[in-house]
Amino acid sequence: MIEDKNPQRTSIAQLGEFGLIEHLTKNFDVKQASTLKSIGDDAAVLDFKDKKVVVSTDLLIEGVHFDLAYMPLKHLGYKAVVVNISDICAMNAKATQITVSVAVSNRFPLEALEELFEGITHAANEYKVDVVGGDTTSSQKGLIISITAIGEASEDELVYRNGAKATDLLVVTGDIGAAYMGLQVLEREKQVFQVNPNSQPDLDLYTYLIERQLKPEARKDVRTLLHALEIKPTSMIDISDGLSSEIIHLCKQSNVGCNLYEDKLPLDPQFISTCEEFNIDSTTVAINGGEDYELLFTIDINDFDKIKGNPNFSVIGHMAHESEGINLVTRANTQIPLKARGWDALSE
Amino acid sequence: MIEDKNPQRTSIAQLGEFGLIEHLTKNFDVKQASTLKSIGDDAAVLDFKDKKVVVSTDLLIEGVHFDLAYMPLKHLGYKAVVVNISDICAMNAKATQITVSVAVSNRFPLEALEELFEGITHAANEYKVDVVGGDTTSSQKGLIISITAIGEASEDELVYRNGAKATDLLVVTGDIGAAYMGLQVLEREKQVFQVNPNSQPDLDLYTYLIERQLKPEARKDVRTLLHALEIKPTSMIDISDGLSSEIIHLCKQSNVGCNLYEDKLPLDPQFISTCEEFNIDSTTVAINGGEDYELLFTIDINDFDKIKGNPNFSVIGHMAHESEGINLVTRANTQIPLKARGWDALSE
Repeated sequence: MIEDKNPQRTSIAQLGEFGLIEHLTKNFDVKQASTLKSIGDDAAVLDFKDKKVVVSTDLLIEGVHFDLAYMPLKHLGYKAVVVNISDICAMNAKATQITVSVAVSNRFPLEALEELFEGITHAANEYKVDVVGGDTTSSQKGLIISITAIGEASEDELVYRNGAKATDLLVVTGDIGAAYMGLQVLEREKQVFQVNPNSQPDLDLYTYLIERQLKPEARKDVRTLLHALEIKPTSMIDISDGLSSEIIHLCKQSNVGCNLYEDKLPLDPQFISTCEEFNIDSTTVAINGGEDYELLFTIDINDFDKIKGNPNFSVIGHMAHESEGINLVTRANTQIPLKARGWDALSE
Repeated sequence: MIEDKNPQRTSIAQLGEFGLIEHLTKNFDVKQASTLKSIGDDAAVLDFKDKKVVVSTDLLIEGVHFDLAYMPLKHLGYKAVVVNISDICAMNAKATQITVSVAVSNRFPLEALEELFEGITHAANEYKVDVVGGDTTSSQKGLIISITAIGEASEDELVYRNGAKATDLLVVTGDIGAAYMGLQVLEREKQVFQVNPNSQPDLDLYTYLIERQLKPEARKDVRTLLHALEIKPTSMIDISDGLSSEIIHLCKQSNVGCNLYEDKLPLDPQFISTCEEFNIDSTTVAINGGEDYELLFTIDINDFDKIKGNPNFSVIGHMAHESEGINLVTRANTQIPLKARGWDALSE
């Protein structure tokens, strides 16, 4: 759908492996004091002094995690970085460095890799992380991206998944479900395009949803916001696989139960109207659709006044004793056990 | 060639993603004091106190970096870890943690992944590194492994590629070229097997070469050896792409030249006899064949007496003024400029 009308195609083989790395990484400058030595040696050298180091890694595979039919390479590069930084944010830490490895089949010209790295560079600048290492190689099929994100935090800042107490409140940032509906809109347009390549899609009604799918952001601001409110979450996780699945992670690792309230779910109006148009239940999408990259956390009930009415946060439920189970309380006030269905739930 | 006669096949889908990660990582225990939190949260948490942190990453793709026709999955897992630890050794640092991401197509049953992780676990135990994170996912084609290795060193221990002086000596550990000839032997056997699946290969003559190819080791001992000898290399790199290519890296980054002596190259007798059998020039293989994972380093000329006659190290040349270039001095005492041909050179 999104195509360069006049593409220049330079074969990657012309540059060779070392030339390629040099070419793609020449725009990476060092922004973090903890980066002593970046790309160019056998390993990067970092210095975190008295801070703790957090590390997370993700593998993104074409045809499994993304579809280049509607995902421009620049956006893909940006999103690949964001997804990893989101894991660092979920520890209440600050992302500082990433390594980026990329494998491509010979159908990709150099210009495609340049576009991908433009997105990676853009995200690295936006999130002030240094690209300190990586690998580029060929693949037998498709595009493969592997990113490892590194961050720092002092010991008392770190928040784990296992600290929720039975009396805590459950809070989510932003709104949820939109990234999944963005994907549905893009999938529909792809099918229309396959039938009639001349159709001009009108996506004005779905701009927010599409942005949430193609250019998500990691909530690096939450750390600062909570610090200013003098709140330290008791547990935290990011929403990559869907709210319901992440709530179950928090509950299981903290040995608590939970009641999630349907009427408290923060939903964007565009999300609600598009669910209606697609004839999908918005609650089902909101709790099972993934890729929102919002943060889900628990706070002490005594912190409620600090967070009440804050537009960045929604209190969506409360934790409970483990024996009460993990439930959705519907608008009709019935309790339904939550299931970790994630994405699969929506394709049933 | 190496096949389980009675394979059990459990579909990966039966376990689901979370079940799979839990199943594959249950044998990983924490060995390093710097690992505060391993697998199970959004990110691992590490504490290096006053040590510097080194980070390196590699992507291994089936059909590009390995061939499962002769590479057993257990060996592949082991080698994938070793290759990354070798980069940490090349900084004169101690490897402490790795993250492991794996993508597999649906042709791999659970038992195949278990074998791969058996090799990974074996290497992690052997090198005392903690597996602190990772990702498992499906691929469109083949097996993909992405490993990030993390290590620690005090500032004065670290050795970079750019510290060689024009008067330094050039030293290599172990012997070189054997891994490449091991690959040639395995490729030949694969072809024989394809023609006649009943032929029983007799590989007794090549055991060392095959071991160097299928089960290489990273030289974690060199750090200790050099420390005991009171030698700090002025520059260091590991030999993954071939001696010649790595010498050029050291020279370019240190702005020096080099004379490498053909008659000083450390070659194993089995390597020499196999080169003769294959009618390949042993020097060409020794300087261009890759995957030896030995360490190449430079030392101050005043340290010569400390290293002389040590069976772990061979002085193979000396650095020179940049204007002298980077040369191989042949047995006939002629100077030939070294080229970074790596593996390609041998397929010409």
